[in-house]
Amino acid sequence: MASILAVGSVAYDSVKTPFGEVEEVLGGSGTYFSVAASFFTQVDLVACVGEDFRRQDVQFLESRNVDLEGLEVMDGQTFRWKGEYGYDLNERTTLDTQLNVFSDFQPKIPEKDRKSDYVFLGNIDPALQREVISQVQKPQLVACDTMDYWIDGHFESLLETLKYVGILLVNDSEARQLAREANLVKAARKILGWGPGIVVIKRGEYGVLMFQMDHQASLGQGGLPQGGEMSVFGAPAYPLEDVFDPTGAGDSFAGGFMGYLAGVNRSDAQAMRQAIIFGSVLASFSVEKFSLDRLKELTYTEIELRYREFKEMTHFEDFQELPTALPS
Amino acid sequence: MASILAVGSVAYDSVKTPFGEVEEVLGGSGTYFSVAASFFTQVDLVACVGEDFRRQDVQFLESRNVDLEGLEVMDGQTFRWKGEYGYDLNERTTLDTQLNVFSDFQPKIPEKDRKSDYVFLGNIDPALQREVISQVQKPQLVACDTMDYWIDGHFESLLETLKYVGILLVNDSEARQLAREANLVKAARKILGWGPGIVVIKRGEYGVLMFQMDHQASLGQGGLPQGGEMSVFGAPAYPLEDVFDPTGAGDSFAGGFMGYLAGVNRSDAQAMRQAIIFGSVLASFSVEKFSLDRLKELTYTEIELRYREFKEMTHFEDFQELPTALPS
Repeated sequence: MASILAVGSVAYDSVKTPFGEVEEVLGGSGTYFSVAASFFTQVDLVACVGEDFRRQDVQFLESRNVDLEGLEVMDGQTFRWKGEYGYDLNERTTLDTQLNVFSDFQPKIPEKDRKSDYVFLGNIDPALQREVISQVQKPQLVACDTMDYWIDGHFESLLETLKYVGILLVNDSEARQLAREANLVKAARKILGWGPGIVVIKRGEYGVLMFQMDHQASLGQGGLPQGGEMSVFGAPAYPLEDVFDPTGAGDSFAGGFMGYLAGVNRSDAQAMRQAIIFGSVLASFSVEKFSLDRLKELTYTEIELRYREFKEMTHFEDFQELPTALPS
Repeated sequence: MASILAVGSVAYDSVKTPFGEVEEVLGGSGTYFSVAASFFTQVDLVACVGEDFRRQDVQFLESRNVDLEGLEVMDGQTFRWKGEYGYDLNERTTLDTQLNVFSDFQPKIPEKDRKSDYVFLGNIDPALQREVISQVQKPQLVACDTMDYWIDGHFESLLETLKYVGILLVNDSEARQLAREANLVKAARKILGWGPGIVVIKRGEYGVLMFQMDHQASLGQGGLPQGGEMSVFGAPAYPLEDVFDPTGAGDSFAGGFMGYLAGVNRSDAQAMRQAIIFGSVLASFSVEKFSLDRLKELTYTEIELRYREFKEMTHFEDFQELPTALPS
């Protein structure tokens, strides 16, 4: 079992959905990622918070195998995000963003974490993502998230970061925007040409597609593909009757995905597929209640059970031969 | 191997996409369904055309195992449809619809087809769908398609038809509209309460979900579910780099789906899953070229190969146990 070095945001979220609302609850990409991954392994979280960060939130994260030596407490206020979802829970409106201390965030990797084998670069400035990579000696697997803001305004910097990344996790609109290509398969192929050996495309309620260069050997640091064929893995999302709060679903996915890989210390093609399912499992639980509420009460037994439900939900046998050949 | 009795439209389509356009080519739901199903079994097509229906189109359908005894040639012109797709191939604009002889269509089932075990009711007036059912003695499996027009304007009639239907095939917006419920799982549960033992929800590029009452025994004529738990099967769509013309994808799906079931003469849960994959395979081929062009040149060997690609694309193994249990 290996631990994960994760860099991301820790925030206080205020969220409104048609089913209720919460104010100033613990959130942020680094938080969701860490809590989801903590079911599988220890997470060393590098992030920053303000002086107002609540003691109970520190205690909660520590209770979940999250090492906080890299959590810097800075002068000022913790990052605030306020958003609202309509009945179409795929559409989110950001009402207010106050970066606060996060705008001055300079990730410093604790000495003890500089030999981490598994690194997750949350959605921050691509230049900072590279700084993190440069502080880690020889990671076995570097995964990276990003968003439209960086794709739009820091495209060249993001491309530079991708050279050092083994796995890029994005949603479908981000993949299209990044590759400037409407067709997802073509977009994935283009992105794979820029460095990552794997592109994971999250499609919310429609599931996940993973595109992978067939040359597994190339998936070391940097993960530059040597060319060759592309293979695809596709999984549906877990069909839920009640979705209360989609906040953090993508980060919970990333946490389940990386958590499993580090937990079993594998990065082969079959483990990647299993990790996609664990990512989908954690994302599906995350949205069942507000904020981190469902992840807080979740057990590993429930996670295993839902993994098996995914297997049952997607399994089909080889076809039966037709009894007689048709004239063709 | 059983044959399929299919009722649907035969039309001349004019289609424009960003990649080209065709004028007055053979189309219609009954046509796409029959051609796709013809790779697996014989289809007895009940439909109507006008005096202008081309001899070469009759010959083509006959060359594909499609029995045309039930194809009525009526006074007037064949159904015309004209549509356009933008770069988002999920969005289609109907430019012109001329029902012509189709507006007076009264399906008459040939004597020899009244003992059909497999019946597909294409997208026509629900009252006519019931007339078809009433003319067939004791079908083993009745599947049915519909569209927003009938859901909007003939809701009660459609509900009456659903009492006699074992499988409803709809797309996701139709499922939501029919059940008046935004959540797809809840929508499926509601529809299953109205008669069908199975609801297949087509989501275009996002794949397919199949919801099924666990009481298999109830899947006879009418297919009234006896209550009980609902099981789900989910499959992604085949990721295509080039989609030229989405026209007929849903009907090709239905043809591959029913074609396989009739071809192997099965309606058990495992065969249903295999049929969903064959439906997805036929739909994926259908959109690769304009009109019926790809299906015309398709071979059964290619179909089997793509089925195996689907298996490879969706397969994942059971997870590896974590090396050491985490404190929880």
